[in-house]
Amino acid sequence: MKKQITLLPGDGIGPEVVTEAVRVLDKVGDIFGHEFSYQTAAIGGTAVDQFEDPLPQQTLKSCRESDAILLGAVGGPKWDSYPAHLRPEKGLLRIRKELELFSNLRPVSIYNSLVSESTIKEEVVKGIDLLIVRELTGGLYFGEPSERLDVDGEEAAVDTLSYKRSEIERIIRMAFELAELRGKKVMSVDKANVLESSRLWRQIANEIAEDFPDVTLEHMLVDNAAMQLIRNPRQFDVLVTENLFGDILSDEASMISGSLGLLPSASLSAEGPGIYEPIHGSAPDIAGKGLANPLATIASVAMMLKYAFKMEKEAEAVMSAINAALDSGVRTADLVYGNQGSVTTSEMTDAVLAYI
Amino acid sequence: MKKQITLLPGDGIGPEVVTEAVRVLDKVGDIFGHEFSYQTAAIGGTAVDQFEDPLPQQTLKSCRESDAILLGAVGGPKWDSYPAHLRPEKGLLRIRKELELFSNLRPVSIYNSLVSESTIKEEVVKGIDLLIVRELTGGLYFGEPSERLDVDGEEAAVDTLSYKRSEIERIIRMAFELAELRGKKVMSVDKANVLESSRLWRQIANEIAEDFPDVTLEHMLVDNAAMQLIRNPRQFDVLVTENLFGDILSDEASMISGSLGLLPSASLSAEGPGIYEPIHGSAPDIAGKGLANPLATIASVAMMLKYAFKMEKEAEAVMSAINAALDSGVRTADLVYGNQGSVTTSEMTDAVLAYI
Ligand SMILES: CC(C)[C@H](C(=O)O)[C@@H](O)C(=O)O
Ligand SMILES: CC(C)[C@H](C(=O)O)[C@@H](O)C(=O)O
Repeated sequence: MKKQITLLPGDGIGPEVVTEAVRVLDKVGDIFGHEFSYQTAAIGGTAVDQFEDPLPQQTLKSCRESDAILLGAVGGPKWDSYPAHLRPEKGLLRIRKELELFSNLRPVSIYNSLVSESTIKEEVVKGIDLLIVRELTGGLYFGEPSERLDVDGEEAAVDTLSYKRSEIERIIRMAFELAELRGKKVMSVDKANVLESSRLWRQIANEIAEDFPDVTLEHMLVDNAAMQLIRNPRQFDVLVTENLFGDILSDEASMISGSLGLLPSASLSAEGPGIYEPIHGSAPDIAGKGLANPLATIASVAMMLKYAFKMEKEAEAVMSAINAALDSGVRTADLVYGNQGSVTTSEMTDAVLAYI
Repeated sequence: MKKQITLLPGDGIGPEVVTEAVRVLDKVGDIFGHEFSYQTAAIGGTAVDQFEDPLPQQTLKSCRESDAILLGAVGGPKWDSYPAHLRPEKGLLRIRKELELFSNLRPVSIYNSLVSESTIKEEVVKGIDLLIVRELTGGLYFGEPSERLDVDGEEAAVDTLSYKRSEIERIIRMAFELAELRGKKVMSVDKANVLESSRLWRQIANEIAEDFPDVTLEHMLVDNAAMQLIRNPRQFDVLVTENLFGDILSDEASMISGSLGLLPSASLSAEGPGIYEPIHGSAPDIAGKGLANPLATIASVAMMLKYAFKMEKEAEAVMSAINAALDSGVRTADLVYGNQGSVTTSEMTDAVLAYI
């Protein structure tokens, strides 16, 4: 098969990890007889520097014309004091909205050879396999107004958490569809004891559940979910929640796996290309030093193969290569206490490539 | 000293744990020569059942006239489908607002003899002593509008996250004042890369910091904070954040201590009585069975002694009695795997009383 991929390296360690992930894609292409071609485009802080726009028109055009998008990371202290519309994150938020990537899949699992890396006890995290489904184009991230204002002569600021029925329906439905292929359990997380939007969310989840008689639905308050993810993550199969709760809970859940440098994500729309990206940030402190862990981005490539190209066995080949590389003892610095014996970003990739 | 305390037992296990905590107050009164008198009032679901109001006028009146308020817990499945204004939680939210309890202190520490109870590794949690300062009367909990509406003929719901400068200033200032008495570090948690209210929050935190030259201020994004609390909680001294982030992060942080049944809280205003309450919920599943852990409520009594009555040594006596009781091996069911050898709610209190 021929596939066109847009690369959005972005900021910080983004370019390094994307470069490594492309090496993996190329090897998969060679072995399985696919042709992956790439177009690189600017996003985030680097795009602001070059085009005064965190999401230039030509980037969006390239993304729309491609079969899938691989993103590194955006952001960094350099742009922290820029006005809101020129912040790197705005590029990411805008592309999510432009491509209608309403569904953000964040699988949380733990590599066998890394079970001891987690700060959570082995018996709690071993064998964990849960999927966080985060709504990605609604809620506080996009609600209007989001602005400074004057309240009784006093400075104030407001953000808006709003959801329409159709926005909630499609993400809940996605969660149920994914649960059907997995453990057949959906945990819907909200704050229905306080928020009206959560009460609508919960009501719609109950409605959609009727279309999926073989999947069980439960509800959990977000504060309790933050606790249960640490206490007993094994109780979860598919966890679905709104945008900001999903942001917080998925980063928290990443600690199950021992390092944020390990977890991939896919952001999908109803049709059209999705974005595949590591859930870690741009880590400006280690950028350019060959210290970044490329595995989250390589695992994102596996998600791309699976979800964008329906290449199941290619995806599995990548995941087992990651596993084998880790089993062989190769580790980037984030996985080694004190950094002794750690390998560089591209050496980690070499180890993965050796097993594909 | 003479002190008037309003008891708000509330729902579920609330009445049981409040009863036990009063036994501790009485013993402290006996030993140290204070006179604590009590008035009990209704709140939450029980108040809805009796008065069709989760916060009856007479409850509010009793609270305003007292020196401090001890609350159990509110809520339960019985009232889950009630209209918003008749939900038990509404009673709690309204009393926080009425008494202007803008500052919610949630200390997170771990009892030495319970270090192994945490699902997080001992080397990560041992000796943890951090203080979460949660803004309690603003943000999404109280912003208007919070309602259903119709958007382009479609059902929708909206909640509002708003903060005025004065609301942010007073809670940040409180965090700095508390940090001065502790480790002299404030971590302000926000989502400034997305929310306008967080950008105002961060700006004001930076301004207030100038008044406290001996305290260091750092900022952290909420998603990262959710991660860092598990990864390395020792980096925190005072963590200050807005209402909903504080709700989520403090429940998460409670997992450090091994059980939600252990952590106390104090909700304070600029002047006037504060509410002292365990951070756990009403646990309807175990209500009335003598299984509830009273220690969080007893520790809340210690916070009352310290913050409301300035009885430092009385507060310390209670905390060391809790420690001693736990050291002696006495455990409620939440602290014992498989429940063998666990004691009842009042036996746990007996053990504490024995050491005061
Ligand atoms: C960079 C930031 C805007 C983004 C988010 O909050 O969605 C990131 O944290 C993520 O989770 O992808
Ligand atoms: C009961 C609920 C409204 C409340 C809150 O969210 O504030 C509780 O979770 C808490 O943390 O005190």
